[in-house]
This record gives sequence, C-alpha cells and structure tokens, in this order.
Amino acid sequence: MNWLDDAALFSQVSAFLAEDLGRGDITTQSTVPRNARARGRFLAKEPMVIAGLEAAEAVFSTLDSQQQLEAFVSDGEEVEAGKVVARTNGFADVLLAGERVALNLLQRLSGIATQTRKFVRAIEGTSSQIVDTRKTTPGLRMLEKYAVSIGGGRNHRFGLDDGVLIKDNHIALAGGVQAAVERARSAVGHLHKVEVEVSTERDLREAIESGADIILLDNQTPEGTAQLVRVARELKPNVTLESSGGITLDNVRAYAEAGVDLISIGALTHSARAMDISFKIQAG
Amino acid sequence: MNWLDDAALFSQVSAFLAEDLGRGDITTQSTVPRNARARGRFLAKEPMVIAGLEAAEAVFSTLDSQQQLEAFVSDGEEVEAGKVVARTNGFADVLLAGERVALNLLQRLSGIATQTRKFVRAIEGTSSQIVDTRKTTPGLRMLEKYAVSIGGGRNHRFGLDDGVLIKDNHIALAGGVQAAVERARSAVGHLHKVEVEVSTERDLREAIESGADIILLDNQTPEGTAQLVRVARELKPNVTLESSGGITLDNVRAYAEAGVDLISIGALTHSARAMDISFKIQAG
Amino acid sequence: MNWLDDAALFSQVSAFLAEDLGRGDITTQSTVPRNARARGRFLAKEPMVIAGLEAAEAVFSTLDSQQQLEAFVSDGEEVEAGKVVARTNGFADVLLAGERVALNLLQRLSGIATQTRKFVRAIEGTSSQIVDTRKTTPGLRMLEKYAVSIGGGRNHRFGLDDGVLIKDNHIALAGGVQAAVERARSAVGHLHKVEVEVSTERDLREAIESGADIILLDNQTPEGTAQLVRVARELKPNVTLESSGGITLDNVRAYAEAGVDLISIGALTHSARAMDISFKIQAG
Amino acid sequence: MNWLDDAALFSQVSAFLAEDLGRGDITTQSTVPRNARARGRFLAKEPMVIAGLEAAEAVFSTLDSQQQLEAFVSDGEEVEAGKVVARTNGFADVLLAGERVALNLLQRLSGIATQTRKFVRAIEGTSSQIVDTRKTTPGLRMLEKYAVSIGGGRNHRFGLDDGVLIKDNHIALAGGVQAAVERARSAVGHLHKVEVEVSTERDLREAIESGADIILLDNQTPEGTAQLVRVARELKPNVTLESSGGITLDNVRAYAEAGVDLISIGALTHSARAMDISFKIQAG
Amino acid sequence: MNWLDDAALFSQVSAFLAEDLGRGDITTQSTVPRNARARGRFLAKEPMVIAGLEAAEAVFSTLDSQQQLEAFVSDGEEVEAGKVVARTNGFADVLLAGERVALNLLQRLSGIATQTRKFVRAIEGTSSQIVDTRKTTPGLRMLEKYAVSIGGGRNHRFGLDDGVLIKDNHIALAGGVQAAVERARSAVGHLHKVEVEVSTERDLREAIESGADIILLDNQTPEGTAQLVRVARELKPNVTLESSGGITLDNVRAYAEAGVDLISIGALTHSARAMDISFKIQAG
Amino acid sequence: MNWLDDAALFSQVSAFLAEDLGRGDITTQSTVPRNARARGRFLAKEPMVIAGLEAAEAVFSTLDSQQQLEAFVSDGEEVEAGKVVARTNGFADVLLAGERVALNLLQRLSGIATQTRKFVRAIEGTSSQIVDTRKTTPGLRMLEKYAVSIGGGRNHRFGLDDGVLIKDNHIALAGGVQAAVERARSAVGHLHKVEVEVSTERDLREAIESGADIILLDNQTPEGTAQLVRVARELKPNVTLESSGGITLDNVRAYAEAGVDLISIGALTHSARAMDISFKIQAG
Repeated sequence: MNWLDDAALFSQVSAFLAEDLGRGDITTQSTVPRNARARGRFLAKEPMVIAGLEAAEAVFSTLDSQQQLEAFVSDGEEVEAGKVVARTNGFADVLLAGERVALNLLQRLSGIATQTRKFVRAIEGTSSQIVDTRKTTPGLRMLEKYAVSIGGGRNHRFGLDDGVLIKDNHIALAGGVQAAVERARSAVGHLHKVEVEVSTERDLREAIESGADIILLDNQTPEGTAQLVRVARELKPNVTLESSGGITLDNVRAYAEAGVDLISIGALTHSARAMDISFKIQAG
Repeated sequence: MNWLDDAALFSQVSAFLAEDLGRGDITTQSTVPRNARARGRFLAKEPMVIAGLEAAEAVFSTLDSQQQLEAFVSDGEEVEAGKVVARTNGFADVLLAGERVALNLLQRLSGIATQTRKFVRAIEGTSSQIVDTRKTTPGLRMLEKYAVSIGGGRNHRFGLDDGVLIKDNHIALAGGVQAAVERARSAVGHLHKVEVEVSTERDLREAIESGADIILLDNQTPEGTAQLVRVARELKPNVTLESSGGITLDNVRAYAEAGVDLISIGALTHSARAMDISFKIQAG
Repeated sequence: MNWLDDAALFSQVSAFLAEDLGRGDITTQSTVPRNARARGRFLAKEPMVIAGLEAAEAVFSTLDSQQQLEAFVSDGEEVEAGKVVARTNGFADVLLAGERVALNLLQRLSGIATQTRKFVRAIEGTSSQIVDTRKTTPGLRMLEKYAVSIGGGRNHRFGLDDGVLIKDNHIALAGGVQAAVERARSAVGHLHKVEVEVSTERDLREAIESGADIILLDNQTPEGTAQLVRVARELKPNVTLESSGGITLDNVRAYAEAGVDLISIGALTHSARAMDISFKIQAG
Repeated sequence: MNWLDDAALFSQVSAFLAEDLGRGDITTQSTVPRNARARGRFLAKEPMVIAGLEAAEAVFSTLDSQQQLEAFVSDGEEVEAGKVVARTNGFADVLLAGERVALNLLQRLSGIATQTRKFVRAIEGTSSQIVDTRKTTPGLRMLEKYAVSIGGGRNHRFGLDDGVLIKDNHIALAGGVQAAVERARSAVGHLHKVEVEVSTERDLREAIESGADIILLDNQTPEGTAQLVRVARELKPNVTLESSGGITLDNVRAYAEAGVDLISIGALTHSARAMDISFKIQAG
Repeated sequence: MNWLDDAALFSQVSAFLAEDLGRGDITTQSTVPRNARARGRFLAKEPMVIAGLEAAEAVFSTLDSQQQLEAFVSDGEEVEAGKVVARTNGFADVLLAGERVALNLLQRLSGIATQTRKFVRAIEGTSSQIVDTRKTTPGLRMLEKYAVSIGGGRNHRFGLDDGVLIKDNHIALAGGVQAAVERARSAVGHLHKVEVEVSTERDLREAIESGADIILLDNQTPEGTAQLVRVARELKPNVTLESSGGITLDNVRAYAEAGVDLISIGALTHSARAMDISFKIQAG
Repeated sequence: MNWLDDAALFSQVSAFLAEDLGRGDITTQSTVPRNARARGRFLAKEPMVIAGLEAAEAVFSTLDSQQQLEAFVSDGEEVEAGKVVARTNGFADVLLAGERVALNLLQRLSGIATQTRKFVRAIEGTSSQIVDTRKTTPGLRMLEKYAVSIGGGRNHRFGLDDGVLIKDNHIALAGGVQAAVERARSAVGHLHKVEVEVSTERDLREAIESGADIILLDNQTPEGTAQLVRVARELKPNVTLESSGGITLDNVRAYAEAGVDLISIGALTHSARAMDISFKIQAG
C-alpha cells in the first residue's frame, strides 16, 4: 500500500476506534490495573485465506504507536483451524481496547478473501478472471477490494470516475446503444476505454459496431453467453468480454468455459461470511 | 432518529458518495443529457424485512436536496418478492449517481433486519429477547444496530463506554472474578450496572456473590445453560441472565427455553446476507 | 488517560493554540532572535490543588514535539504560595507562544480541583461523596470532570447518553412519575440503572415503587432531606440517594449528615475561580 | 456578528451538543412520547446583564432548523430576578436535548457581561475604558470577548497575531526595551502600532523614546500609576496608556483617576461567576 | 457541475473566505453601517473569455445564502473591455467581504480560458485538439481544468489515478519501454488505456509494438513530430498521438499540421496572466 | 516558519497530494518495481530567485517521513540556468508521486520571488519599499506572501482582519472620508492604525485632518503622486504614504522617486510566470 492507503487506513481505523470506544473502555479502566502488560494471539478457528493483517496492526498502533503485530503468515496464505496467525504484546488496556475492531476487520476481510479464492479455484485452468463489483460495504471499498485481490481476484472500477461502463439505464436515457457509445467515446478522456452492458445479440452487435472496447454480458445463461461470445469475437476478435449476474460457485466454471475474459461477482463483497477468528489475551 | 443521528447519517452518506463518485460519474456525464429527468423504483426480488429506507433517501437528498423517496412500506415490514418498496423522481444523473450507494445500504440493512426477525420468530412465546453484539461492520454500527431493532432485536452496548461487561480477559488480568466485580462496582458511575461473563458454576456463584447485576453465560449448551440459570436464580432471583456463543437458528429456542433473559448473536450483523433489491430507472 | 483522551487532548490543544495564535505571534517574531532558547517556570501564587499538568505539557509538545514539562508535583497535590510546580526548557518562541494557553488551562483546572477539595474536606468522615454535574464549560467537559476527580470528587454523567436521569420536565411530559420510570426501565439497555428526581415524599414513594434504582432529592433543606432519606430507606434499603440544589460549603455537611450517598454541586465547574499561577521565562 | 461568526458559532454549538449528547439523550428517548411538543422559558433568578441569547438560540436551531428563540430583552439589558428573558416552542426532545448547553452558554456569558458592567460602572465619569485580556476560556474566546463588549468593555487583542504587545519576557530575550521596540517597529506591518509593558520609570522613558505607541503600566499602585502617567504625557502627550495587574472593583476607580486610557482586567473572563438562570419546560 | 463539484466548490470557497477574512473584516465593521445595502458590478477592463461566474457567485452565496449573481454573459463568451459581466445586490458588508476572493477567482479563471482560446484559435481547421496538463495551481485543479474546457481545450488526466502515462522516469526504472508497457497492460484495470512518452523513433516503435494505445511525442520540433507521426501511423493506423514540450502560440499550428491528435500545454494553467476585472460597489 | 505555518503547510501539502494522487499513482504502481530506490535532482532551466524549497521538501516528507531534500541553495538566492538547486534520495514511487506537486509549488513560488526581486532592484537606492496585495491565489496566500518576502518585498495585510484600509467603497457607504476615518478610529482596537485610500487632494487633506495614519494614493501618475506627497508631508510630516494601481517595472522607479514609502503591486502574485524547473530521476 502507498502513502494514500496508509493515511486513509490510519484515518479509518481512528474513526472505527472512536465508534467503539466512545468516551472510553469503562470496563477495563475499572477492572484492569493501569500499566498491566499482556500478550494477545489471533487464532484461526476454521480454515481460511487470511487478509487484513495490516489493518489489524493499524488498530493497535493507532492506540499505541509502539505496538506492532508479529504475523506468522502473510495476507493471502491459506491456514487451517487452530493456526495462530499473529501475536502482539503491549499494555493490557490497549489490547482490550483494540480487540473488537481488529477482529471485526480481520474476520470480514478474511471472509472476502476466502470467498474469492473459492471462485478463483473453481475456474482454474480457464483463461477467465474473477473480478469484483462496486457492491462493497459503504466506507470499506478500498479494504474490501484489497481483500478480493488477496484472494486472487482482480478489481473492477474503484468508483464511478474510474471507467466508463454504460448500463441499461444509460442506454435508455441516451436513446439507444449507438448514441450512448458514440457520446461516451467523444466526451471521455483519451485514456479511457468504453464498456457497454448488453443482454441481446442485437445490442451486442450495435455496441461493437459503435466502437465499444469491452462488452458486459449481463444475466445470461452459460449457453447464451457462449453464443454471444462467438458473435462478439467474429465482429471484433480482440474485444474484452465480461459476464455478470446470477453467477455462483456452482455455475462459475460454465461461464469461464463459455470464453469470457472476466466474471464479476457482487457476492464476493456483499455477502461474504465473516471468518471465525478469536483473540486470546494473557497477562504478561 | 434524532439530530445526532441525522447529522451522522448525512455525514456518513456524504463520505459513502465521495467514495463511490471520486471525481465524478464519467459514464453518466458523457452519455445522459444534462437535466434529463427520470423515475426510479426499488424492487424487492426476494421476501425480506425492509430496513434502511431513511438511509436510502438520505443518499438522494444529499445529492439533490429537493429529492425525496416515496416509500410504500415502512422499515420493519415484511414484503414478498416483486414488491415495489419505494420510488423516487428527479434528475437522471442524481438517480444514477446515488443508485449503488443507496442499494448497498438498503440491501445490507434489510439483510440484518431479515436475519434478526428469523431469530425473534424462533423464540416467540418465550420470555427471552434477541440482542446484538459489537461485531458490527466498522463504521456502520449505528445503522446496523438500528436494523437489528427494526428486525425486533434489542441493542446491547453501543460501545465500550456504554456499560460494564467483564469478560474472561478482564478477570484474568484483575486476578479473579471477585476482584474484578468489586473493582468495577466501586469505580464505575452510580448509573451503571455490572455484567460478568462466566463459564463455570463456580464463577457464576462468585460473580453473583460479589454483586454482579447481570451474568453472561458464554459458550454453554442449552442444558448447561438451564442448570446455571437455576443456580443463578436461587442465589439472586432478579439477576438478569444472558446467553452467547454458538447460537444458531436451530438451537436458539432451546436457549430461550433454558430461561435466560437475553440471547446475544454476533451473526445478526457480521454475517447477514445482503437482500436482493434492484433499482430500475425510466426516463421521465 | 487513554488513547482517546490523548487524541482528544491533542486535538483540543491544537484548536486552543490556533485560537490564540491566529496567523502567528507577531510580537515574538519581531523582537526575539530566531532559535533563542529559554527556560520557563510555573509558579503558584496562592495555595491550591494542582490540576492540569498534562494539559499544560500538551500545549508545549504540540508546538514542539521535543518539549516536555518537568513537574515537581503531581496533579492532586496541595501546594503553598511560592511553589514552583513545573519547569520547561525549549525555544523561546515556543514558550512564548504556548504560555497563555497553558496558563489558561492550568489556572482553570486547578481552580476546579481546589474548589472540589474544599467540598470533599467539608464532608470528611461522613459516608457521602461529592459529585459533579453537566454544568461544565462547553467544550471542556472531559478536562473539567478530570479536575473534579483530581480534587476528590466523583463524576456524574459525562453526557445525556451516559445514564438515565428522569427530571421534572420528563415526568411532566411522560404523564407522571410511574409512567416515566416504567417506560425508562423497559426501553433502556439492560446495563443502565434508572435515577429519578423528586421533590415531594409522594413522588419519592411512587418512584421507588415503580422501580427506580436511584433517587435525586432536589432543592430540599437538610432537614427535609433527612426525612426523605428515612422514607426512602424504609421502602428500599439499598436505594442510592443523591442531593442537589442550593448546596454550599456552609451547608454541605448538613446534607451529608442527612444520609445521602451523593451530593452534586454545579458550582464545582461553572463558577470556580481561576487560581493565580504565573509563568516566568528566562533566557537560556 | 458576521458570516464567520455565524459559521463559527454553528460549528462550536454543534461540537458542544455532540459533547453533551454523545450517542443520544437516552432519558428523553425512553420517557417522552416522540413528537410531543413543549414550551420552554428562560428565567433570570438573580439580577444580571443578559448576554448570549444568539448563542442560546443557535443551540436549538442547530437541533431543529425550524426552532427559534423569542427574546424579551436584548443582549446588554439589565434584568431583575424573576424576569422571563426568552421563550421557545418546539419538539419536547429538542428542548430537553438543548437545555443544558444553552444554559451553560447563557449563564457564563451573562456572568461575564454582568461582571464587566460592574467595572464599567465603577469608573463612570472618568476618561478610562475597561478592556479584556487573553485570559479567556480556551475555545470560547470570541464568545467571551463578545460578552465583555456587551457588558460595556472594549476588546484588547483577539490573539497573538492581532497586535504587538512587548512584555517583560520579550524585553529580556531581545536585550532591552530599546532593542525590542526598534525591532518590532521595523519588522511589523505598517498598519500595526507597538505597545510595551513597563514597570519602572526608566523603562517607560526608554520605551517612549524608542517609539512605542502605547505603554502598559503593569502591577503599579494607583499612586505609582499617576506618577508614570505624568512622566509619559510629558514625553509624548498623545501616548496611549494602559494599566493592568491587581485591579479589583474596589480599586479600579483609583486607576482610572490616575489618568490611564485603558484598564485591562483578566478576571472579567477567567473568574466570572455563572449567573443563575433556569429553563422551565411545559407540555404544549 | 455535479454534486461533488458543488460540494467541493462550497468547501473551497469557504476556505478561501476564511483565509481572507480571518477574525473578520474590521474595516467594514467599523466604517459601514450595519445592514446597509449595496449593488456591485463586475466590469471587464480588457477583452477576455469569461470563466468562473459560478465560482464568483458561490463566494457571495456562501456569505449570505440569499445572495445571487445576475450574469449578463455565460462562461465561455468573449467580451470587450467595458462590458459589465454580472451584478449582484445584497448587504454591503457581504459584498465587501466577498469582493477580493470573487475577483481573485474570476480574474484567474478568465485568464486561463482566454489563454486557452488563443491556442484553440491558432489551430482552427486542423484535426488537433488542445489539452491541459497537471501543471495546475495546487488546490485549484478542478477549477482550472474547468476554465481550460471553457476556453475550448480538452482535459488530460485529472490526477495520477486517472490514466496510465508512462514517462521517461518510469521507463528507466522499469528497465525499458517494452517492460514498462507490458507490465502496465497486465496490471492496470481493463478499462484503462496505456500512453507512453517517447523521444526517439526507436522508442516509438518499441512502444507501439509492445501494445501502447497512445504515444506522447515529447520535446520534438514540428518537423521531427511530422516524421514520427508518419512512422507511428504506418505501424498502427489508429494510434492516438500527442505532442508536448516547448509549444507556444507561435509554433502550435506547426505541431497541429504535423498530424498529432492532441497538443498539451502546461502554460495554459501555470502561467496565464490574470485578466483585469473590477468590482464597483454603490450604496443601495 | 513557526508551528502554525508548519502545521498549515503539512495540511496543505496533504491536500495537494490527495488532489493529484486520487486513489493512487496507477502508472508507477504498475510499471516500477516495489521498493525500487531512486535519486532526483531539481534543475533550474532559466535564471531565477529560488523560493519554496521547504514546501517542496514537505511534499516528499509527507509521502515518506524519512525523506529529506538536500538543498544546494537557500530560498532567496539567485541562480543561473543549469544550477542543480536540490536533490533527494528515496523510494522511486515516492519521488514519482511527489514530483508534480513539488514542481508546481517550487515553480510558482520561485516565479513570484523572481518577479518581486525585479521590482525591488528597480527602486534600489530610493527610500521606498515594494509591498504585496491581497490579490493572491485563493488557498496559497501564506506561501505566496512568503515568496514575496523572499524576493525582498514586504507584506501588506494578510487578510481583512489584519488592518484597517478604508477604500472608496467604504467611504461611499460611510458618507464621506471624515465619517469613515472617525468611525474607524473609535471602533477599532487601540493597536491598529488607520489607512485610507484617496484619489484627490481634497480627500487626502480630509483624511489626514480626520486622523488617518497612512494614505494610499490610488491610480495616480508619478507626477500626481509627487504633488500629493508634498501636500501630505506638509500636513503631517510623519504620515506613511503608499502608491498602488498601474505600476509596472517601467514606471515603478518614478513612483519611488515621488517619495512614497510603500508601493503595492498585485502582479507580484496574480500574474507571475512560473519558473522553468525540472526534476530528473535516476535509478539508485
């Protein structure tokens, strides 16, 4: 990550801690001796792909700049249940204050990486790639897209300014595929490509003929996808093709085998189950 | 919601929009005629408990203060697949700019409310109540706890400053249950009760005898829970009892029938599946 | 203090310095040689309880991260006139830029601690405790409540979210004591107690019978207080009782001897006189 | 007040409300019916000069933009005990949420205005003016200096960038009065005058001869002041003269009669007692 | 402009006003009667292309939400010396407080638009387009790029995240043109094109053969440019070609006639002279 | 610079970097090996007065707190074309990310210092001084006024709160010169002088007779200026006199010789040409 990510991470983690701590951790303040020291360990309680160790460390180092996380695995590694993934030593009140936020981040990001890895595995050997969507948790897009990349997926647009993707709503409001594509090509900066969502062969042809660089085949069956891929490649051999809509672990390989370059899946981020990770603290 | 929630909601929604829009929606700017108007409808695509309509409206009214959401149901209502839950009219570019953020919020919060409602239904007729935890998405705690309440659950602590809950880690660092409870009672403000997490009958007895107001029975079987409930009620009839750990839709009723007052479930917020809701836009 | 307090303190002190410095200390810039070094000493000019040394140090370390305060007493100690309480060495322009803000904080917080100590002394030997109120200077609540605790008082609510205290206005709007108490008990989180303000024996009885945990006896004479204490203890022996309203150094002991647990006094924070402390700077 | 003051006031009041409300007013939320309306009245409980009505109104209008304060007096008027100074109607929860912050501001600012008015009265008929100092509450300088002006005092520097005032510390570090004054005159912008603090006749002469525009006579007796005034006026008839240090209501007139133009008093702001004002709420 | 631009503009203008107003406009406060009203007119004092009327209006409406600017021309129009371009009525103190900031913006943006228009005119009839660079004033990029577009230019990258432009430094660090282009193509999102800066025919060939979509011909003579254009079009007929470096009003047409698609000019924004515009205020 | 300037500089530079970097430098991320190190040199490509080295260094140290700039000249030195003014070593991605912002600042500030130095040279030997105006780039006032001082000019007001300057608009709204000056003298703090803009001898006389300390002679010819200077000095020998309006390098000496103390020139900041400086990066 670069400076921007670091600065953003620190700023986000500070806000997350403020949300959880409010005016302070009154339980710890009233029960744990001031300046007591402790050791904490993050323990994976089920198999998973780890993601978010830097974010977890940032939680503790925000609370106490001296405190670091000693990681025993790297983001992206697959671990078994029972694996101690990281440990940290420091003031007991710092560990207790940061525990929940660190876990909430680590569990969620590992959940996304684990989910992504399953999709990536499912299409191994094909020439397709798994990509994410903008269906991320509001406020966590950079972290969640990072977790997707750690899981082996690629990132689609980071935001509405990050590329032209003409969808059905744009087409309807622009007055047709051709009008939309031509307007986009003439108005957008020279460094941007133009992607168009289509759901019929007719729109597909119109999009390519109007100069679209990338075609998103939305809500097609694998068979329908294969047919549209053939049409598209005939018209423009080097067109980039993407599938989206209704894609699950069960059918993702069929889409990949239909020949698309990219398969985008909202569930990578909007419905990943949090991984079960615990944080155990001992005096000392 | 009150002023604080409104101010916080506006501020959050602005940040969520900035995250998605970056330097602007280049697709809409280049394809949709400036000042075009449009109508949008939120459509439930599966049965669900709706939650988050105010948040969704805040997305659009942040973009254009004139724009409102006309809701056809209220937060908390159960709807069937196919139900149009709300509609909005306005500038096409505003609808397109807000669509994704509004959906991301509405889908997530409805997912939490729907999940909560299932747990609440599962214990209907008992005297127990479903409560949430601090296992919320960083940055979204207030919204997610709101969704839990909409689903019929009650809210546990909003943060570490919102109540004394002495856990195993505190007990270890304080040097035992009695020491921890007594310290907490003498140090904390007179308006706060003291809750203690226990996992053995011995700790349960020590906690109650030391003056704990509330006991959290962690990671017990339903049978073990019933046994500890009996012990606790004998010692202190009006003690409040809470269960947590490993509770699912399948076993939640057994815990309720074991006689606890509160059942707390992290999965309400950390692993709820986003509900399938679409936003359809038409010119005009 | 914890991270939050540290972060809040730094952020507050930065705002205080910006308020005083504006575009810069034009007197020092134009008269004092750049990079001149100096030594400064804080001198108590009357007897007082010192409070706020950390805040004073934060002023200087915000201006120059290398600069520390060497304190010769700790917060809470009583000093005589003439005592040098702390000293600091550093760049002359830093000492001159921070002087006023550091003094404004130290003088005010020591004033509050000194005032509190007098009340605490006045009831020594009784079982009552002095508590503060929310009548603090806007923006300085955490610091002023800290000064009260340094003086030997205890802290009442830190804000409206920090406990249920039902006052006459709530009772009037709720339709009576019983309605108010019962609603509060059912709506508020299970970790919160319920305190009710009463001014008649009838309301006192109704409050206790409705389940109030704590009773605030407002604007009573010491004799009236003693009478209500007897009634309350008869109804509920372990009820917590608090006095407020019209309490001065002259009569506070009478309230304590009337048997209440807590005596809350707004004047601790809203009308404490600033202590006379000077800051002397020497070249070097 | 101008836009900046308005913007600053709104921003400050929002912070003050956030400080008091935290996550929300849990007492009102749980006892008062949602949407209940109420009327509130501010009642002076002792004689005072009112100051801060705009700030009090800002508290309520921040909570609800529709809510206004109907004032029956203007800032600066003297009222007797028992006077209703203002009233407001609105939602009950808004009145209850804003009550404490509004009172804390109104009581403090009225205290400063009342204190200032006493000093102004004490020197009536002389040609001196009462001025404030930078000994204000950190964070409240603009509001407190406003209260001084409402009380009839004038404002000294708003901050260290607002004028050149060379004090003993600057003189010591600059190497003497002459060096300090000459440096200041050559380095500071052409729109600024130069004031110098002196405590001996020798320094007074040196300051005036070096070109000081204003002389601050610090910590003199009234008699000593009169003598220095004579010396100063002989050297430079139109020099502006200011007294400071140890000035009380008992001796302020003696300083005025000694012939100084300005008398600065830190106690106007650092030790003014809060005025007793109550806020009574009724349903409706 | 969209919501983001509006929000950004308001936020920027507030900061600009705060920079100029500090603690307030002490001249106006002390000389102009409170609530006096006035009329102001913006007068072009030399021929120019107007740009920035919305920004100028934002200055006044930030100070007083009621105040609007009545414009007699639109951004992009060319006006002669003597033309009244806009007028506004309102409180005299608002006009005086906003005057300087409004002029500073309007003069600068009109300067950029005027400068851009000259370059656009100079290449009229060719197929080239004038584009800007990232050599904008820190903090004003969006406004200055807007002024370029008003002048008839197109916008190059809005920031380093807005497109891939491989320069000599990247090539050196990547180990050659081919390595840099290939890495960029495989790592960057599928919606982005790849532009490469070259200064020799050899690098040009390598860049195109490695798959670059756009070529930036840096610091070439017009003749050298024409030669490289021929080579490039032979290798890849639809490649986009851009010239930059050392381009002035005198030689820009020669570059356009050499056949490039884009001509980028830093001086549009980094060295445009502010246009002479005055703001005249009259009572009433 | 002091703490405030440092804090302001860091905060500004962070905003400037965020403006340029957006979501990150995608070119460098995809082409340059992570952790590659590099050396960069700033090279003057024309003769100039250097200004802004601290600001340039702040750009890099904001990105990487370890990175420093080794300067070979100081701000204010005149350098020839070809001079390496500073160098820096660090991570290649940090150098590439900071390059543009650092150059944009250094080029602009050096442009202002160079322009100012020319005016200062032009009046060498006279008793006049060159001063700047409030015609600075919005958001960059402190930096641009710093560059003026580096060039040898003096700073006029930093903002509208930094001095009383009564202009034609104030006079018109106040009802005449005398009314305006008298009001200002009675209302403004005792540390402020009063400057008045006049354009006729009659106004000049009225201003001085009403007690103005400084006179701004606006839009006069050098001859007219000399005449007004004579009148003014006769009336009040120690009055400060300033010229403004229509002053260029060609005629500035004539104004100086006319005997004014200050000559203010907006073009120092609003129309200075950016100096040509390059930043060359090498691996290593």
